Amino acid sequence: MSTNLQTLKGFRDFLPEEARKRQYVIDTLKKVFESFGFEPLETPALEYAEILLGKYGEEADKLLYTFIDRGGRKVGMRYDQTVPLARVVAQYQNDIPLPFKRYQIQPVWRAENTQRGRYREFLQCDIDTVGTDSPLSDAEIITVIAKSFSELGFLDFRILVNDRNLFSGIKNDAIITIDKLKKIGREGVEKELLERGYSPTLLQEMQDKKPTERLISVLDLATELGVPEDQMVFEPTLARGLDYYTGLIIEVEIPSYTVGSVGGGGRYDNLVGMFAGRQIPAVGFAFGFDRIIDAMNELALFPKKNTKKPEVLVTIFSTDLVKQSIAVYSLLRSKNISAQLYSSSDEKMEKQLKYADLKKFPYVVIVGPDEVEKQSVILKDMQTGEQKQIMQDQLPDAIN
Amino acid sequence: MSTNLQTLKGFRDFLPEEARKRQYVIDTLKKVFESFGFEPLETPALEYAEILLGKYGEEADKLLYTFIDRGGRKVGMRYDQTVPLARVVAQYQNDIPLPFKRYQIQPVWRAENTQRGRYREFLQCDIDTVGTDSPLSDAEIITVIAKSFSELGFLDFRILVNDRNLFSGIKNDAIITIDKLKKIGREGVEKELLERGYSPTLLQEMQDKKPTERLISVLDLATELGVPEDQMVFEPTLARGLDYYTGLIIEVEIPSYTVGSVGGGGRYDNLVGMFAGRQIPAVGFAFGFDRIIDAMNELALFPKKNTKKPEVLVTIFSTDLVKQSIAVYSLLRSKNISAQLYSSSDEKMEKQLKYADLKKFPYVVIVGPDEVEKQSVILKDMQTGEQKQIMQDQLPDAIN
Repeated sequence: MSTNLQTLKGFRDFLPEEARKRQYVIDTLKKVFESFGFEPLETPALEYAEILLGKYGEEADKLLYTFIDRGGRKVGMRYDQTVPLARVVAQYQNDIPLPFKRYQIQPVWRAENTQRGRYREFLQCDIDTVGTDSPLSDAEIITVIAKSFSELGFLDFRILVNDRNLFSGIKNDAIITIDKLKKIGREGVEKELLERGYSPTLLQEMQDKKPTERLISVLDLATELGVPEDQMVFEPTLARGLDYYTGLIIEVEIPSYTVGSVGGGGRYDNLVGMFAGRQIPAVGFAFGFDRIIDAMNELALFPKKNTKKPEVLVTIFSTDLVKQSIAVYSLLRSKNISAQLYSSSDEKMEKQLKYADLKKFPYVVIVGPDEVEKQSVILKDMQTGEQKQIMQDQLPDAIN
Repeated sequence: MSTNLQTLKGFRDFLPEEARKRQYVIDTLKKVFESFGFEPLETPALEYAEILLGKYGEEADKLLYTFIDRGGRKVGMRYDQTVPLARVVAQYQNDIPLPFKRYQIQPVWRAENTQRGRYREFLQCDIDTVGTDSPLSDAEIITVIAKSFSELGFLDFRILVNDRNLFSGIKNDAIITIDKLKKIGREGVEKELLERGYSPTLLQEMQDKKPTERLISVLDLATELGVPEDQMVFEPTLARGLDYYTGLIIEVEIPSYTVGSVGGGGRYDNLVGMFAGRQIPAVGFAFGFDRIIDAMNELALFPKKNTKKPEVLVTIFSTDLVKQSIAVYSLLRSKNISAQLYSSSDEKMEKQLKYADLKKFPYVVIVGPDEVEKQSVILKDMQTGEQKQIMQDQLPDAIN
C-alpha cells in the first residue's frame, strides 16, 4: 500500500455532487444546441502528432501532450476541438453537407503551469458553424449564446461584440495593449501605449469607433432572432488575442461574476480549411465550462432539487424483512415516486439513517415487524426529523 | 497540405448520426442508473503510472498507454474504471458514505491488436455497488441490468448468472476450458479437458450442478424487485475468466445477436480495497457499449424520429427576405415546433433543398416574394416531394 494516492497536478476527480452539476450544464447546453440544429461530433483523444503540431503557435506546441506510442507513432492528446474539426471537415468532405453546424463537448489536455490556476485536463464546449460567411450565421451563434445562458438561469449577462476589421491599420502590439483595458485599466493602457511608441489617445480613438456595417447587420438579425438588445454590447476595444479572428469577436461576461469572461468566440475564416487546402469560413463560440460552473455556484443557479435523484430511501429493517421493504419500494415506484432501496440487508438502522442524511434524502421509510403487522410504515421527514406511522396505501400521497 | 489525414488505427471519429446514437444509449442508461440511486463519478484520463501498473496482470501492463510527461512523471492513460474507482474509494474514504453506488461512463485506452476487431479507444459504461456483500446488492445490479436493456428496447435478452463458488476445488485450467463451451462447443470442451488430463465428464458434472443457496437468494430477491424470471438463466459453466470474481458472475446475451455478449460483471470482493488496505466488497456490471450499439442497429431499436433534431428547415429565399424567414421561423418556435433556420442568407434554393434532403428534414418552408405579399409560405413535404402554398397562420397546424 505504498502507492502514492493522488491525482496528477492539474487533474481532477469529480465526485457525484460535482459530476452531477457538470452533467446538468452539459444537458442544458446540448438541449439548446440541438434545438438550433447543431449536431454532435466526437473525435479521438489521440491524433497523429503532425496533425496537431504547429497549428497553435510555438508556445502552444510546448503545452501539447505528445509521446511515442507502442507502434512507434508520434501521437498527441487532443489540445482543442478546432484542429480536429478542421481535420474532420477535410477528411469527410463528401459526407458532411455545408453549412456544418456542430457542437463538441470533450476534455482536452494542456501541460499548463498549474500555478496560474489552470487545469491540465478540462472540458471544452464548442459550437461552430462551418462553411458560410453569412451575417445570419454570426447572428445565429449570438442567439444560441443568449439562449444558452438564459437556460442556465443567468438573468444578467452581456454578450460583448466587436468586429476585428475595426483594428485594420493598427499594429498588433497596440491591439494587444488596448485589449488589456479591463485588466489594467485606462491609465495602464495609455501608459503602455506610450511605452510602445504609440499615442495614448489611440485608446480613446478606438473607443469612439462606430460598429461596422456588417456588425450592425449581425446585431440587427440577432435582434430579429429574439435576442434582447440590452444583452448585446458593442465593445470596440475587444480583441481577444490576435490573428485568429477575421470578423465578429464575442466575449460573454456576467457583471456579478468578477473572475473573468465565461466564454468567447467569433468568426475565423482562415482556420478550418487548413487541411482541406481551401478557405472554409467559420464562426463559433467556446463556453467556459469551469467558469460557468463556478459562476453558477456563486449565484446559486443549480436547481435545489435534483429531479434525477431518488427522494425516498426505503431502509431494510432486518434480513427477515427484506421482501416487505421491497414491496413498499415497488409500491412507491409503481406510483412514480422516485425511491431507492438501501442496498444491504444486514446493516443497523442507525447506519442507514446516517447514510440517508449524508445523501440528503428528503424522506426515509422504515418497515419494521410492528409496521408489517399493521400494514403500515414509518415515514421520517429528514429535514424536520419528524416521524409518523402511516398506512402503506397512504404512503404515496403522504410523500407527494 | 502534406499532412496525412487520418485517425490512428483503433481510434474513431463519430460524425453526427453515430454520435447521436451513442448519446441516446448513454442518456437512456444514465436515466435508469440514476433512478436506482447510482451516482456519477468522473476520474482523470491520466494517472500516475504506478497507480495503474501491476493491477491488471502482465499482459495488460503491455497494453497500457504510458509515457513520461513534461514534468518527468511517469503517467498512464485510463485503462479501465475499476482501478480508478479503487483509488477514489481509498482517497476520499471520509467523504464517500458506503455503500457507494456509482456509475461511470468514460473512454479508456488500450494498445490492443486492432486486427482482432478491437478498438484502442472505447467507452466503458460501468455500474458498481461498493462496500456491501449483501445478496440484495447483487439482486439490485441484476435489476438495473434488466431495466436497462428493457429501456433500450431489447425485448429478448438473457441475464446468465452463476456463482464462482461452484468452481471451488476445480483447477483453473479446467475452468478456463469449461468456460469455452459457447465458443468451441461440447465436443471441443470435452476434448480439451482430456488433453489437459481431466475427465471429459467434468463438463457434464458442472452442468448438473445446482445453484448455490446464495445464488437462489439473489435470484429470488431480483424476482421480488420485478425482474421477470425468464430473463435470468442459471448457467453453471459461466466463469468469465479467472480470479477476478468471488461470487456472482453475470453475462448478458441477446439470442438474435450472435456477435457475443453485450455485457458482463459480478461480485469481486478483493479488488476495490487494493489501495485502502482492507477488504471492500463490491458487485458491478460493465455494459458492452459498442456491441449494444451494434445490436441496436441490427435490431433497428433506435427511435426513427429523433426528438431532439429540428423537424422543419426554414430556408432563406434571398438576402432581402431574411427577416421574413426569421419571422416564420420565430412563429414556428413560439408554437413549440422544432424549426431550424438555414444559416446562410446567400445560397441558391437548390443547395438549401439538397441540404434539407441530406439532413433528413421532414419539412421545408420557403418564403419567397410572392408568399411575403400574400402572407403565406410554401410548405414542402420532403418525403412525398409534395409542396403547397398555405397561409402563415395555418402553418403550425399543417406541420403538427
